[in-house]
Amino acid sequence: MRAVDIIRKKRDGHPLDHLEIDWMVEGIANGEVADYQWSALLMAIVWRGMNDAETAALTDAMKRSGTVVDLSAIAGSKIDKHSTGGVGDKTTLVLAPIAAAAGVTVPMVSGRGLGHTGGTLDKLESIPGFRADLDLDRYKAVLNECGLVLIGQTAEIAPADKTLYALRDATATVESIPLIAASIMSKKLAEGIDGLVLDVKTGNGAFMERLDDSRKLAQTMCAIGRGLNKRVVALITRMDQPLGQAVGNAVEVAESIACLRGEGPADLVGLSVELAAEMIVLGEMASSLEEARHWCRRTIEDGTALERFRRLLSAQGGDPRIVDDSHRLPQPKRRLDLPSPRTGVVLAVAARPIGQATMLLGAGRARVDSPIDHAVGVILHKKVGDRVAGGEALCTVLVNDERHLEPALSMILKAYTIGDGPVAVPDLIVERV
Amino acid sequence: MRAVDIIRKKRDGHPLDHLEIDWMVEGIANGEVADYQWSALLMAIVWRGMNDAETAALTDAMKRSGTVVDLSAIAGSKIDKHSTGGVGDKTTLVLAPIAAAAGVTVPMVSGRGLGHTGGTLDKLESIPGFRADLDLDRYKAVLNECGLVLIGQTAEIAPADKTLYALRDATATVESIPLIAASIMSKKLAEGIDGLVLDVKTGNGAFMERLDDSRKLAQTMCAIGRGLNKRVVALITRMDQPLGQAVGNAVEVAESIACLRGEGPADLVGLSVELAAEMIVLGEMASSLEEARHWCRRTIEDGTALERFRRLLSAQGGDPRIVDDSHRLPQPKRRLDLPSPRTGVVLAVAARPIGQATMLLGAGRARVDSPIDHAVGVILHKKVGDRVAGGEALCTVLVNDERHLEPALSMILKAYTIGDGPVAVPDLIVERV
Repeated sequence: MRAVDIIRKKRDGHPLDHLEIDWMVEGIANGEVADYQWSALLMAIVWRGMNDAETAALTDAMKRSGTVVDLSAIAGSKIDKHSTGGVGDKTTLVLAPIAAAAGVTVPMVSGRGLGHTGGTLDKLESIPGFRADLDLDRYKAVLNECGLVLIGQTAEIAPADKTLYALRDATATVESIPLIAASIMSKKLAEGIDGLVLDVKTGNGAFMERLDDSRKLAQTMCAIGRGLNKRVVALITRMDQPLGQAVGNAVEVAESIACLRGEGPADLVGLSVELAAEMIVLGEMASSLEEARHWCRRTIEDGTALERFRRLLSAQGGDPRIVDDSHRLPQPKRRLDLPSPRTGVVLAVAARPIGQATMLLGAGRARVDSPIDHAVGVILHKKVGDRVAGGEALCTVLVNDERHLEPALSMILKAYTIGDGPVAVPDLIVERV
Repeated sequence: MRAVDIIRKKRDGHPLDHLEIDWMVEGIANGEVADYQWSALLMAIVWRGMNDAETAALTDAMKRSGTVVDLSAIAGSKIDKHSTGGVGDKTTLVLAPIAAAAGVTVPMVSGRGLGHTGGTLDKLESIPGFRADLDLDRYKAVLNECGLVLIGQTAEIAPADKTLYALRDATATVESIPLIAASIMSKKLAEGIDGLVLDVKTGNGAFMERLDDSRKLAQTMCAIGRGLNKRVVALITRMDQPLGQAVGNAVEVAESIACLRGEGPADLVGLSVELAAEMIVLGEMASSLEEARHWCRRTIEDGTALERFRRLLSAQGGDPRIVDDSHRLPQPKRRLDLPSPRTGVVLAVAARPIGQATMLLGAGRARVDSPIDHAVGVILHKKVGDRVAGGEALCTVLVNDERHLEPALSMILKAYTIGDGPVAVPDLIVERV
């Protein structure tokens, strides 16, 4: 085989067969395919697309490029959840302890934030002492001990995806549904899971803003997983305003703990419970979603979910005292209330500019290697549908470095639309795939 | 500027401005743009195309990536000819001495053959002692002394084109009219010419088989040249059957010398004279094509064209005795007549398989670094419209290495279509742009 012939075939709109895709992916490691050939192929894929069989073959080849973890020695159904990323999306921290407390085994490999969205890994690292960089042996040990584990991507898992993602990032070939789906699914399938719940975001704060695209991505990922005999469910959920009230790192950990205490905001608790319930049904720990939701609520009420989170912190080196004293998390130098310019009803809080403002404050990263300020962020007091008086605080801004404060405040203020109302607050869950 | 933003712009179908194109081309040499970024951009250009302004900017940036030769110290109008490549296309060897003898200054930088087409450089190198690898000082000296010079591409001329062409070859991004046009024109414009005659081939033996594509390529190249204040004319000419009778290297040199003696085949002489006449008019050595054609015929009849060729050989180290004794050119071990399977009229001699068969015999190269056998090739005795008796020789095959002889002979036989006739032989020149 020759890379140039395979590139030409895709360029001319013909589907590639699985041997060609295998050969191209293997060629990354064995040097038979140059990175400049892969980037031309990636652009041809953005142009021509990939059918389900091609996408499944690419996923499988990337999965097999590294270690495929064997979790068969660990009891229970291994179910993970993946979100396509949003603003204030800390559901992982809430639902993982809930699902584990309900009897599901939860092996989670999470990513870092990029651009306007946060990443679970960054949030976890705001916890003093917490280690997300476990090797695969320790990963299995923590999973066995706690029923859940939360780590970052390791070099052993799907290295071909890592290489291709870096190429896509540098060549404007990120925006392709089959490439996005194959990237996500190859990593998840290499983790050793039996099932996966997908939270595919849609709206202005999501990477896929249009519902059509989000639906297509959800369908593609479900088809890949089911084609490889995994149980997969996707919920398409709104990311028009931030999820919950907290946006940042430590502040999101604190809000997650509040949820596990039964004191979290309704939208965040509701979505976390819904996703955890899907995990519980996939893991066959309940026979219906209704029953599973009941179990979820119970783990919050009886403290077993919070206890499970505490156990996880200990197992991964984090300071468990943060659970009872959130002041042990990184704190900002300054807390600044942003007053509402008028009296009225909040019609919108655009998620993307809130995420971008938080990034400006230092909570996110513009580049993969930018440092993170774990203490800063925003706490939204008013969200869509809330009444606000002129001068009343819309949100509290948590600040350390004041260099970009002015543009960040102005961005947050512009994210708010305040009018005369009333406004309908649509359901967070748009559909189930 | 960031390469990823420029790639994204083109990916989304927006035209690039000349600063962006300059930056990308400069980035090849200064390392700011990686080859994998360029290859993604090349695929995006194949997909989205380039408008005339973009193509002109790319041409100009590639031209300026190396030395732009200054020929102003040399007398006369400097006019070159470029052919997009065909089978048996040795017009350069015929028309350059004719145009020079008619008073035009002819600086020619030629390429090697690739695939089924031959290259002027390979043909020249079949002449014992001939040196095509002159440096730019010697190039100017020979041009000054002989009124013509024939060299290969040097490292100083348009190095960015060299890099991009190698990338295109490896990434299936050769087939793009703006990229082809910019590649050809950047090299030609860097040679220091005042004017250029383009011979754009169309038909089964050409790289652009469809007339529409050939016309678009011709128009694009003319627009680039005229936009940069050069006199440019393009003829679109048929490449359905090989040009002349000889296909190979030494055998094509011998046929070119026959043309300069007034003994060449009519199609080859006719096209060479027509292209030379265009050069003479562009060079303002005649006021009409009719007058120019007259001068061309005169240089053949009075021996001044042949004399000019002899002088060129001496200046570039070639053995001038080949002019009077073609047996001093490389000779094959064996000459094999291929008999016609039937009596009839030749309806077609497909150029591409004849070129491919000649390559199999060793006259061409499948890869850039393949060695060439200068002695082998084919001499066609029967071309379209000719009557042939069953058993009469269609052609003579010149053979050294017999390893691929059988498939080569079968390919040649299949290239011939012999029927009952009659058949119309269309004009070689389709149109003038």
